[in-house]
Amino acid sequence: MIGHLPTFQKLIRQLQRVPYLASKNVYKVAHYLLKQDDNAIAQLCNTIIEAKQNIRHCERCFNFTEGAALCTFCESPKRIKTIMCVVETWHDLHAIENAGEFHGVYHILGGALSPLEGIGAHQLTIQALLHRLENENITEIIFATNPTPEGEATASYISSKINPAILIISRLASGVPIGGALEYMDRLTISKALLGRRPF
Amino acid sequence: MIGHLPTFQKLIRQLQRVPYLASKNVYKVAHYLLKQDDNAIAQLCNTIIEAKQNIRHCERCFNFTEGAALCTFCESPKRIKTIMCVVETWHDLHAIENAGEFHGVYHILGGALSPLEGIGAHQLTIQALLHRLENENITEIIFATNPTPEGEATASYISSKINPAILIISRLASGVPIGGALEYMDRLTISKALLGRRPF
Repeated sequence: MIGHLPTFQKLIRQLQRVPYLASKNVYKVAHYLLKQDDNAIAQLCNTIIEAKQNIRHCERCFNFTEGAALCTFCESPKRIKTIMCVVETWHDLHAIENAGEFHGVYHILGGALSPLEGIGAHQLTIQALLHRLENENITEIIFATNPTPEGEATASYISSKINPAILIISRLASGVPIGGALEYMDRLTISKALLGRRPF
Repeated sequence: MIGHLPTFQKLIRQLQRVPYLASKNVYKVAHYLLKQDDNAIAQLCNTIIEAKQNIRHCERCFNFTEGAALCTFCESPKRIKTIMCVVETWHDLHAIENAGEFHGVYHILGGALSPLEGIGAHQLTIQALLHRLENENITEIIFATNPTPEGEATASYISSKINPAILIISRLASGVPIGGALEYMDRLTISKALLGRRPF
């Protein structure tokens, strides 16, 4: 029955490309958009276009920045410029920043190494990271890539390229998440938690 | 940290208004939009605007229509014009149409009566429905409003306004859904299924 509404079908096809929108909800979002007045739609479109124009990647750490060439972390005098946290994506940076525990600078890789998906070292910002380590006065590097095979491989690939004599290299702790139940944890998490046990 | 990216924040606020987009996914969708090239964004915006311009409500049944004043169901010579199915929303029409069992025409109410939410008979297309019953040659009416208190109330309100002498009035069957397990059904569904039992 959608076949009789070509423009509607086109809208559905556009919305289907948006990630994280469940296929059933695509119709509901289309319906919502059709119910909005022209003004609201113009505002939505203008905001997307404006964001695309104004927001770019920080030249140093590849975080988002608006207006300036460097992001607020790279420019802020309050951040400790000698400690670097390496993350896969902007979402990971956001998660770490929300925890409020880290006060250094970041480096966003843009993903993790995954030969099967065709993501090699050149698709990530690894070269730029190594360049930063040469030119900036970084003394400590924390790998906060995801505890997945790809994330682990990326962290070990990069650390193999770094001279450990001049840098403290660490990795986020793996273990049982706070509020989690031991009963429901997988074996690997438990064994990582045991291996990484800390004095009480 | 989002505070330093005013345009990004504006985009997030716009996306937060879109229903069925989980609050955590709003950031992921914003990130996706920023990664698209200008062309793709222009296409998305144009499609939404075009859809809003081209698609309107059928003058008779309030289904969506494109180009014509009446929708394909109201215009199709293949649909039985004497049987009308009354639904709350376009999504319900879509669900019934997908089942492929109904070959009559529809009437979309635009919601269900809900005094608490300020939705009375005048907010719905009940007047238009009664007008259709007077002017069209409808002999059977099937209420396919949701089996919720609001849906039931709407169906009984409308049926109280109709002369039952000239119309066959029916209601969608309630019962155990196909593939469902009796064990996990609520009491009300079981009792409805018992009351509505059919000869084997």
